Amino acid sequence: MSETVNIEGAYCASPLPHSEQIVMGHGAGGRMSHQLIQKAFVSAFQNPALQAGDDAAMLQPVPGIQLSISTDAHVVTPLFFPGGDIGKLAVCGTVNDVAMLGAKPFYLTAGFILEEGLSMSTLQQVITSMQAAAQEANVQIVAGDTKVVQKGKADGLYITTAGVGIIPIGTNISGTQAKPGDVIILSGSIGDHGIAVLGARGELGFESTIQSDVAPLNHLIEAMINASHNIHVLRDPTRGGLATTLNEIATQSNVGIMLDEKTLPVHTEVASACEMLGFDPLYIANEGKLVAFVSREDVDAVLKAMKSTRYGEDAVIVGEVTAEPRGRVLLKTSLGSTRIVDMLAGEMLPRIC
Amino acid sequence: MSETVNIEGAYCASPLPHSEQIVMGHGAGGRMSHQLIQKAFVSAFQNPALQAGDDAAMLQPVPGIQLSISTDAHVVTPLFFPGGDIGKLAVCGTVNDVAMLGAKPFYLTAGFILEEGLSMSTLQQVITSMQAAAQEANVQIVAGDTKVVQKGKADGLYITTAGVGIIPIGTNISGTQAKPGDVIILSGSIGDHGIAVLGARGELGFESTIQSDVAPLNHLIEAMINASHNIHVLRDPTRGGLATTLNEIATQSNVGIMLDEKTLPVHTEVASACEMLGFDPLYIANEGKLVAFVSREDVDAVLKAMKSTRYGEDAVIVGEVTAEPRGRVLLKTSLGSTRIVDMLAGEMLPRIC
Repeated sequence: MSETVNIEGAYCASPLPHSEQIVMGHGAGGRMSHQLIQKAFVSAFQNPALQAGDDAAMLQPVPGIQLSISTDAHVVTPLFFPGGDIGKLAVCGTVNDVAMLGAKPFYLTAGFILEEGLSMSTLQQVITSMQAAAQEANVQIVAGDTKVVQKGKADGLYITTAGVGIIPIGTNISGTQAKPGDVIILSGSIGDHGIAVLGARGELGFESTIQSDVAPLNHLIEAMINASHNIHVLRDPTRGGLATTLNEIATQSNVGIMLDEKTLPVHTEVASACEMLGFDPLYIANEGKLVAFVSREDVDAVLKAMKSTRYGEDAVIVGEVTAEPRGRVLLKTSLGSTRIVDMLAGEMLPRIC
Repeated sequence: MSETVNIEGAYCASPLPHSEQIVMGHGAGGRMSHQLIQKAFVSAFQNPALQAGDDAAMLQPVPGIQLSISTDAHVVTPLFFPGGDIGKLAVCGTVNDVAMLGAKPFYLTAGFILEEGLSMSTLQQVITSMQAAAQEANVQIVAGDTKVVQKGKADGLYITTAGVGIIPIGTNISGTQAKPGDVIILSGSIGDHGIAVLGARGELGFESTIQSDVAPLNHLIEAMINASHNIHVLRDPTRGGLATTLNEIATQSNVGIMLDEKTLPVHTEVASACEMLGFDPLYIANEGKLVAFVSREDVDAVLKAMKSTRYGEDAVIVGEVTAEPRGRVLLKTSLGSTRIVDMLAGEMLPRIC
């Protein structure tokens, strides 16, 4: 059990992570990222929305309105990869985070940091792709900012998007709402995005046809919410993969999670790539998948609604919520044994989003 | 007159600015930035909020509510300068943009791009400064994201903030609302921020005590709005300086602007620095100043309200709106002659915000 450090305990140890410098692992979405966020950001900017620990903040500026607000910085390299590019990623990433509170996303902002020397045609391609993704998601990009930095002070371009959506009154979907007995649904295969980006970098060591799954999931979520009022948690397993996302939720809701390995959908090519490289698909980033925690009685209705949409066709049940062990994710392996699935510790795949 | 290219005309020439690569001038906030924004972004993401051309978007997601949404990417170098730092700038810049539509800013998001090797203490200092600025502005930082890029792929850290505020129903303050006869009030001295940042870089060639004016202006704006319902335009003259801001407004509202040079407040040190370096203070960035276009009958009330607040103490009348020449800013010089004040053409002071 020594590998399963208690996260909250570690958070209290010092005002900042022990490292005195930022290292790549602080950006990988695993435990180091969480420690940095908790120690440096959440403790400084403390407010209930940040402390909730969701990927978007639920806010009530005036009576009768609930906003969902989120932001994501995008630094993926290369800028273009099979199935997507940094522009599509920047739109979908924020649309999805906003929607994961059950909100209807309306507006995006986009802040561009351009490296001197970037070709106009590259920028134009990225913008065209953003517009196509915004159109598919039915959101408007309503504000933007552009800064240019000297050659060598960025990597082509970085895009930070923020998004605003409206949460229907009465909706209370959050990582804090998982309840023992909830069934966990995954919307499709895992690991596609991370492996597609690695492939585009030529780091797989073989030719691959794997496409990133990057997609806006708000229409899928709308269909799910129309089918059930008993969806407790929605989250997209991006950086850090499904394992990290489920650990976050187990901690937020103080529940246990039991995953069933044989039900986890992994494309053969992704599985082979992972095997060759020594990766676990549970830790590989996705950009067009979600997990839903749903009351058992509504599972069929939710699954049916999901399967009727483009990005939920392959939805499957992958596990359930247990009362114990609190804050832990366990995996029933194909061999019948049970192992702890920890949060990603540090760095694995840098700059995949 | 050959230097006063018709901006709209130039916009129509090609799908992108003639340059085939991004150059530093695209980020300087002047004409090249405007062309890039119009040709690449506004035409792709077209929607009324973006087309209005304000620094924030006015939006009505549901009846009875008007949101003001804005974003700003911050890449200033050095990270710390007299009077402020990138963190204070990132909070104030977005608070101010949101407030310039007459909104009360509520929430900020912050996306951090950290360079591998950044010291934790630097990050902590920046975060502390952000929190202090957020507290002064009375806004909450409710969502954040952190990415880490390899050493040499950024310059310490970049921060992109986005902000959301609520516009009181009935308020219609925008760069499109300037009317002939309006009086133009400036909240204080110009050029302090740009010169302070240059000084911090050691590029002035002499020791300077000039402090950046970076400050949140939302409380000043609240006082102004409480004093008058006849404020037509509010804008902060940041990148590109007062000259560029006034050109933007003259174009948006299709009016002329007459500035009176002898009324323009410029600190002696800023004036000397500009003289030595061959700069015009009209083009130097400010981060804690605003211009207000106000109906003549309410000028005294607005000035009085401004002078009662910390950041409006030195408010002065600097000019007026004329019917002609449409889209042009003219300056009555101290010598009594009149000259055209054009938009900043390309690069002048890179990376000052």
